[in-house]
Amino acid sequence: MIRVAIAGYGNLGRGVERAVNANSDMELVAIYTRRPPESISAVTEGVKVYPLAEAKNMKEDIDVMIICGGSATDLPTLTPMLAESFNVVDSFDTHANIPAHFDAVDKAAKRGGKIALISVGWDPGMFSLMRAYDFAILPEGHNYTFWGRGVSQGHSDAIRRIPGVIDARQYTVPIKSAVERVRAGENPNLTVREKHTRECFVAVEDGADKAAIETAIKTMPNYFDEYDTTVNFITQEELRRDHSGLPHGGSVIHSGSTGDGNLHTIEYRLTLNSNPEFTGSVLAAYARAACRMAHRGDTGCKTVLDVPPADISPYSREYLREHML
Amino acid sequence: MIRVAIAGYGNLGRGVERAVNANSDMELVAIYTRRPPESISAVTEGVKVYPLAEAKNMKEDIDVMIICGGSATDLPTLTPMLAESFNVVDSFDTHANIPAHFDAVDKAAKRGGKIALISVGWDPGMFSLMRAYDFAILPEGHNYTFWGRGVSQGHSDAIRRIPGVIDARQYTVPIKSAVERVRAGENPNLTVREKHTRECFVAVEDGADKAAIETAIKTMPNYFDEYDTTVNFITQEELRRDHSGLPHGGSVIHSGSTGDGNLHTIEYRLTLNSNPEFTGSVLAAYARAACRMAHRGDTGCKTVLDVPPADISPYSREYLREHML
Repeated sequence: MIRVAIAGYGNLGRGVERAVNANSDMELVAIYTRRPPESISAVTEGVKVYPLAEAKNMKEDIDVMIICGGSATDLPTLTPMLAESFNVVDSFDTHANIPAHFDAVDKAAKRGGKIALISVGWDPGMFSLMRAYDFAILPEGHNYTFWGRGVSQGHSDAIRRIPGVIDARQYTVPIKSAVERVRAGENPNLTVREKHTRECFVAVEDGADKAAIETAIKTMPNYFDEYDTTVNFITQEELRRDHSGLPHGGSVIHSGSTGDGNLHTIEYRLTLNSNPEFTGSVLAAYARAACRMAHRGDTGCKTVLDVPPADISPYSREYLREHML
Repeated sequence: MIRVAIAGYGNLGRGVERAVNANSDMELVAIYTRRPPESISAVTEGVKVYPLAEAKNMKEDIDVMIICGGSATDLPTLTPMLAESFNVVDSFDTHANIPAHFDAVDKAAKRGGKIALISVGWDPGMFSLMRAYDFAILPEGHNYTFWGRGVSQGHSDAIRRIPGVIDARQYTVPIKSAVERVRAGENPNLTVREKHTRECFVAVEDGADKAAIETAIKTMPNYFDEYDTTVNFITQEELRRDHSGLPHGGSVIHSGSTGDGNLHTIEYRLTLNSNPEFTGSVLAAYARAACRMAHRGDTGCKTVLDVPPADISPYSREYLREHML
């Protein structure tokens, strides 16, 4: 049995918990949190919740720690800190800062003789794998990533910070005609605006200036100004009733030619009813790989690109060759 | 530069040749054949064609040999034979015999201290990877593979063996409604007949008994009797004009639930205008991995499931982390 601990118990932590419980070769041995442990009731019966500061006393009881924090402020300190004492997996997803995060985690993991797998999930994660596979097979091809239809929590949060807004949900929506052109191998040059639209569902305070809020959303730099955005004002009850899920997904589409112009397209598409539960499932699978790599004596920071696919599987290599190859 | 040789120069060998030429870190150093070498004119200028028997004299000049033979009779003898002297890659695709082929090749490669990658291509190959990834992420999910629309060379050959038939092309066609049900996460139980149909285009001799030929096709055991098959009689000229390509493709679709019934679907889809050129492109990418694994001192038989994705990429791990993760 792989003894798994979770550090951080928000949506993602709960998604990991569900995934660990769905894998018969794993058991959840502890949850660590920076909140008061007694404020947390885990889904898994009997699992103990500890203050994060106590993790270092339980090194012998944990094979791998899955770190479920935010990429902005949590993971840049948490992952290097924990990687010195544990095999760890995180879902660091600020693409531009991955090289710096990798370096910090690599140093810590090597100091501790541990394995750290960073940026695990679906993007970065499975989508990264597809991009790497696609370009290796068709090196002169063109590669596009579309996201959605799905909830962007960062964009939803940005709307919530506008005065007068009570709550909000923002959906990122890929533009179908753009996806179709890419699929057809046209290799179109697409601006940000031509790839995705943004749909917002917003509940506001009584008497709030809706026109001003709509303008504030649509002109918000980085988040909305480069997109065609629609704003729908609904009640808080409607928001809760119709938009409480966290669906997401998207596709990586690659097209390239070989020989005398023979076109090929490769498409990988995810349709996810729960982003945190799916991401948690990927993290759990890679936690298995982290243990196997550590068992082989490997150390340092790795990504999904370094992991032999068989290492994330619950099945033996013999079984995989016989049944999945 | 990776010095690549090709053993076997049919459609697949020519596809590999194109792929090697499209990769700037590879050069094609030799083609080996069992036909008279002078009967072959390679696409690549300056590349020499040798009798296969001479390969063993050129061990020092070749980093990896890509073996392009048939799975029925060529590869079971050729791959073990060559794996003793060279790092090799093959596309062995008789799923049921993979374990036996693996064992024979593993022994030979270990004797020679070489790496052998077997069953590389898209199915087995990329589709196998997807099945393994899918089940690792959503272990309780259901997985379906659909093939086509594309030319099955085995089925086309089977039709050609019927007396009175001059030439034929058989397309395997996935049934759209079945694909849609799988995509929707219905997990349907589908018979062979409910997943694919078979479309045949057949040119026959003057005066041939078309009704008898149509019956012979539709009732052929293993190949057609379990499918809904349509037979179209056309002229040899029409066959050449409209059906000379070798398109193929298909999809691997996996669906599974997490938590309280949140459904997720993962779909990987290939649309290929030239099956041998795409397969050749996958073989070339994995030839790179074979060299890297050999360079690290690894030996024995491996499959795509054992290869870290970064190893097939022309890019460095640093570049991949920065640009594709």
